[in-house]
Amino acid sequence: MSKWYEEELEPGLRAQYGLKKILHSGQSKFQTVDIVDLEPFGRTLLVDGLIQSSQIDEYVYHEALVHPALLSHPCPKSVFIGGGGEGSTAREVLRHATVERCLMVDIDEDVVKFCRENLPENAAAWTDPRFELVIADAKATLENSPTNFDVIIMDLDDPLEGGPCYQLYSVEFYQTVKRKLNPGGIFITQSGQAGITRHHLVWSPVYSTLKQVFPAVKAYTQAVYSFLDEWGWNIASTDESISPLLLSPEEVDKRIAARIKGEMKFLDGESYTGLYCLSKKHRQTLAAETAVLSIEKGTFAVMHSQGLCVAEAGSAEVS
Amino acid sequence: MSKWYEEELEPGLRAQYGLKKILHSGQSKFQTVDIVDLEPFGRTLLVDGLIQSSQIDEYVYHEALVHPALLSHPCPKSVFIGGGGEGSTAREVLRHATVERCLMVDIDEDVVKFCRENLPENAAAWTDPRFELVIADAKATLENSPTNFDVIIMDLDDPLEGGPCYQLYSVEFYQTVKRKLNPGGIFITQSGQAGITRHHLVWSPVYSTLKQVFPAVKAYTQAVYSFLDEWGWNIASTDESISPLLLSPEEVDKRIAARIKGEMKFLDGESYTGLYCLSKKHRQTLAAETAVLSIEKGTFAVMHSQGLCVAEAGSAEVS
Amino acid sequence: MSKWYEEELEPGLRAQYGLKKILHSGQSKFQTVDIVDLEPFGRTLLVDGLIQSSQIDEYVYHEALVHPALLSHPCPKSVFIGGGGEGSTAREVLRHATVERCLMVDIDEDVVKFCRENLPENAAAWTDPRFELVIADAKATLENSPTNFDVIIMDLDDPLEGGPCYQLYSVEFYQTVKRKLNPGGIFITQSGQAGITRHHLVWSPVYSTLKQVFPAVKAYTQAVYSFLDEWGWNIASTDESISPLLLSPEEVDKRIAARIKGEMKFLDGESYTGLYCLSKKHRQTLAAETAVLSIEKGTFAVMHSQGLCVAEAGSAEVS
Amino acid sequence: MSKWYEEELEPGLRAQYGLKKILHSGQSKFQTVDIVDLEPFGRTLLVDGLIQSSQIDEYVYHEALVHPALLSHPCPKSVFIGGGGEGSTAREVLRHATVERCLMVDIDEDVVKFCRENLPENAAAWTDPRFELVIADAKATLENSPTNFDVIIMDLDDPLEGGPCYQLYSVEFYQTVKRKLNPGGIFITQSGQAGITRHHLVWSPVYSTLKQVFPAVKAYTQAVYSFLDEWGWNIASTDESISPLLLSPEEVDKRIAARIKGEMKFLDGESYTGLYCLSKKHRQTLAAETAVLSIEKGTFAVMHSQGLCVAEAGSAEVS
Repeated sequence: MSKWYEEELEPGLRAQYGLKKILHSGQSKFQTVDIVDLEPFGRTLLVDGLIQSSQIDEYVYHEALVHPALLSHPCPKSVFIGGGGEGSTAREVLRHATVERCLMVDIDEDVVKFCRENLPENAAAWTDPRFELVIADAKATLENSPTNFDVIIMDLDDPLEGGPCYQLYSVEFYQTVKRKLNPGGIFITQSGQAGITRHHLVWSPVYSTLKQVFPAVKAYTQAVYSFLDEWGWNIASTDESISPLLLSPEEVDKRIAARIKGEMKFLDGESYTGLYCLSKKHRQTLAAETAVLSIEKGTFAVMHSQGLCVAEAGSAEVS
Repeated sequence: MSKWYEEELEPGLRAQYGLKKILHSGQSKFQTVDIVDLEPFGRTLLVDGLIQSSQIDEYVYHEALVHPALLSHPCPKSVFIGGGGEGSTAREVLRHATVERCLMVDIDEDVVKFCRENLPENAAAWTDPRFELVIADAKATLENSPTNFDVIIMDLDDPLEGGPCYQLYSVEFYQTVKRKLNPGGIFITQSGQAGITRHHLVWSPVYSTLKQVFPAVKAYTQAVYSFLDEWGWNIASTDESISPLLLSPEEVDKRIAARIKGEMKFLDGESYTGLYCLSKKHRQTLAAETAVLSIEKGTFAVMHSQGLCVAEAGSAEVS
Repeated sequence: MSKWYEEELEPGLRAQYGLKKILHSGQSKFQTVDIVDLEPFGRTLLVDGLIQSSQIDEYVYHEALVHPALLSHPCPKSVFIGGGGEGSTAREVLRHATVERCLMVDIDEDVVKFCRENLPENAAAWTDPRFELVIADAKATLENSPTNFDVIIMDLDDPLEGGPCYQLYSVEFYQTVKRKLNPGGIFITQSGQAGITRHHLVWSPVYSTLKQVFPAVKAYTQAVYSFLDEWGWNIASTDESISPLLLSPEEVDKRIAARIKGEMKFLDGESYTGLYCLSKKHRQTLAAETAVLSIEKGTFAVMHSQGLCVAEAGSAEVS
Repeated sequence: MSKWYEEELEPGLRAQYGLKKILHSGQSKFQTVDIVDLEPFGRTLLVDGLIQSSQIDEYVYHEALVHPALLSHPCPKSVFIGGGGEGSTAREVLRHATVERCLMVDIDEDVVKFCRENLPENAAAWTDPRFELVIADAKATLENSPTNFDVIIMDLDDPLEGGPCYQLYSVEFYQTVKRKLNPGGIFITQSGQAGITRHHLVWSPVYSTLKQVFPAVKAYTQAVYSFLDEWGWNIASTDESISPLLLSPEEVDKRIAARIKGEMKFLDGESYTGLYCLSKKHRQTLAAETAVLSIEKGTFAVMHSQGLCVAEAGSAEVS
């Protein structure tokens, strides 16, 4: 290999991926956007130099993001996606036969455009009659939406300081989300790295923030090879009697069979159960977490090249 | 960072670790041995340039290796460790109050010596009166052992071609193992990378090979951050009515409380359950796997710098 | 920088160049060909992963290759270029007002095609009426040429084993060259790395080989930044009374003023003099060199990824 | 190679050296100091992550630094070295039979200590009765010196902002130097990278600054392989009628034979002449250079990780 794509996973930890081809490389209004073919991962989207999703295992991330949320709901008809510009999240949502409307709101027109041109596996989603695309700020669009949703999915970048979406990881935004969910509505958000050494940076602060707003919240994780770590999500229900967050493996398999078109590759009843089995260490961190991410209070999780920090108003403490 | 330790995880995928200090670096009779301080992982043992274990999360690997085996057994008194030169596996075994004898057989005197000098967290194990160390070939030592064991643990390098231990991943060796286990005996072996893209290289062939010998076998996985992937193990029981391979989370927590000294960091009932929840993809691979690793037939899993292959007698097929 | 181009300069010595853009990347019949924009060097041609020439300082290499040869000749009218597919060598030759015909013979159509499309600084050369391009083997074309030449220039890849041009560094080829030169004819060939530690690999063997054939030979060197070392050439004259190899700085400046169109950037009388001032170490190597590169005797300089060797018939000695 | 030492040569240009052994690695009061064995260069001293000198070719740098200065002087008896902690500069000075006293003033005790322990090739210098070592600031020591010197040599780090020695590249310091030289005294200073693309950063500003103070100044360069570029020096004479800066090659060879003990490896009359033959481009830069490095005016050359700049009072312009 002569050409390499390099990512700094954390200070002092670099990954280098053999670079076979650059399909697109540019600077959008918000971020740098690369779509490349990597030797170990196939076609890959990188935003600001960080892998967002790659051909070899994007299904793990997207099945783990979308289906636990939609399966928890008794009959999800309307779905809001914040971010998700690559199209894979919409693709998974639209596999659910119950879904009548899927509104995706991404702020970065370039990401959408270049992914649409270069990621053929999502082609069907873009032209599905139930699918609606808006290029705008997800927060403002959701606040002003005349209708509510059964499921709201946040498929965002990490909360990079100065990036386009750290405000979408805040107690204020989660209050908006809750208001915009129908009874029994489900909220799911990607929540950053969640391995044994880094899950306290974004994943557990998002968890404790959601606990301020929702009666039921669960944090879960799954190893994603092309992210070179476990990844994290947080899921919340407005009413667990309608939409319970933890289903039995048998119930998951039954709902998949009844509702989802085509074969899953990663998720079924057993792997769903695995998502929710956290290590002792992870559960200790969640139990001890007190951070509340807030725009008003100026406390939010930000990711620097030198690591992540939870900034308190007027004082930043680097983790 | 000016100094880096570089590992090729697979062709076209490199990791580079900031190198703070070299504590030992040399060539033993069998392999190169490095003990270093790495920026992201702390003190780390590397053999032939591959990370074996690092301070930051070795407990994940070693708790996942040792405790499921010992907890499955109703009362493990005698334990055989093949490999494990670093000392951490013995350390975890010796935390079990039931254990009366722990025999560790490692072929590489240098690994043992340099780890003993440089990894203070295992100091207590080396001087425990129940612990016995033999520098020898684990296969021959086990074959000639006058006594049998309740639990046999293989904590080996990957089956590198020309390396010291690929014969310890074979149907012939597993027959020896079975013969040397007491009734209800448990066998556990590390089984290489086990993420969504690489679990077919060693993990599933070891599984199907063990199925030729043992009435009950289970394959399981766990993300290990410093390995930058999920890792894999295979566990087998000579008699599931005495030593069942899958315990309920409650039973695990009960046995931990009753038998193990000190606090676990990673393992408890819930994370134990997570170990055994495999993805749909992993289970499909296990179900379809037909390889039988055999010294006689010349079929064994070998790892090259260019990937891994399962070699059939007279013909090598690179995976 | 996220994207890098990596070159192995010698075993244990890597350079990495920030990769801004890939303009062309492909495999020709003979070699891999990359034309890229590099952060430190600008637009750059790489063949088989090795930098051939880059925008930032290609003029140093090409002025040092072409002008000493043409300036030594009293009135160069016909010039043969072997290799030179990039076009820069022809560009420099065609700046000489005396030149009536410049025949370039390159074996690799793709190198020529892609350089012509992507290196605008050589545009004028390709359409100069005095310029003639043949895609063919330089050796066969020269042997069969009905006419002789005043100057023959070899602007080739290094003599890579299995590469397209190691036979063009041989006593047999140099005999052909001599036969095809007019009286007072000048031969110049690039001769690989020539820094204080690597000049014995190709540069001095080419020197001693040329000494077998030509009455006057001089070896010279010049630092080329984008090659990260000094580079080497060997120049030979069929008759020093017509074409002396060493001119005074004043004579060089006079001939440049009289013959060459446009401004030079690197070469003039003083820097010309510097080319020929070799270090004591370099001169000792030349004096002691006995290698004769020969196709018949099977002794030729070959460059491996593991270094270079001068292979004797039936025995290879790695330097 | 698993272990690498990485140096950033300029933004977007990295070199990586196979790291065989770390002999010393630490933080002195002033800088980080590494003494390592590198695969391509042998034993090597690095300060603040930048190669200072390596076994394979340190003689090129040190012969080019020391001998042109001492050979220009008719009979150098007393020599002052600023910096030079490694000991090689003193070693070369002490080879001159005329030298009666060599005073070396280095600010960093650790560099001196660790080099003395780890670089056996300089052992003789440290115990030569003519040699005197002072750990102190070279500027203050020179200012307060009760005696003058025949030759003053500055063998310093590059003028890193915040580093220990950027004030030693200034018009004020050069006035002190001139005052402390005996009639016909010679001053020589290392002057940083001097290849075709980077010689304007330190080398030419130092040249034009020296021109403010000394009647005769010459800038020269030499490729140094382990620096991966040409290196630069500036030499000045207080009186060219006593100490001419440019000797004929014959005169150089004569003085070497008469005065220097042992064999030179790099320098003799011819290579000396080559040092002074600058390219057209280098000479154009020198001719156009107007910078005057001054402590009072706050104009000095500083090297950042992001390149170098000549800072004017109150305004920094990055080159």
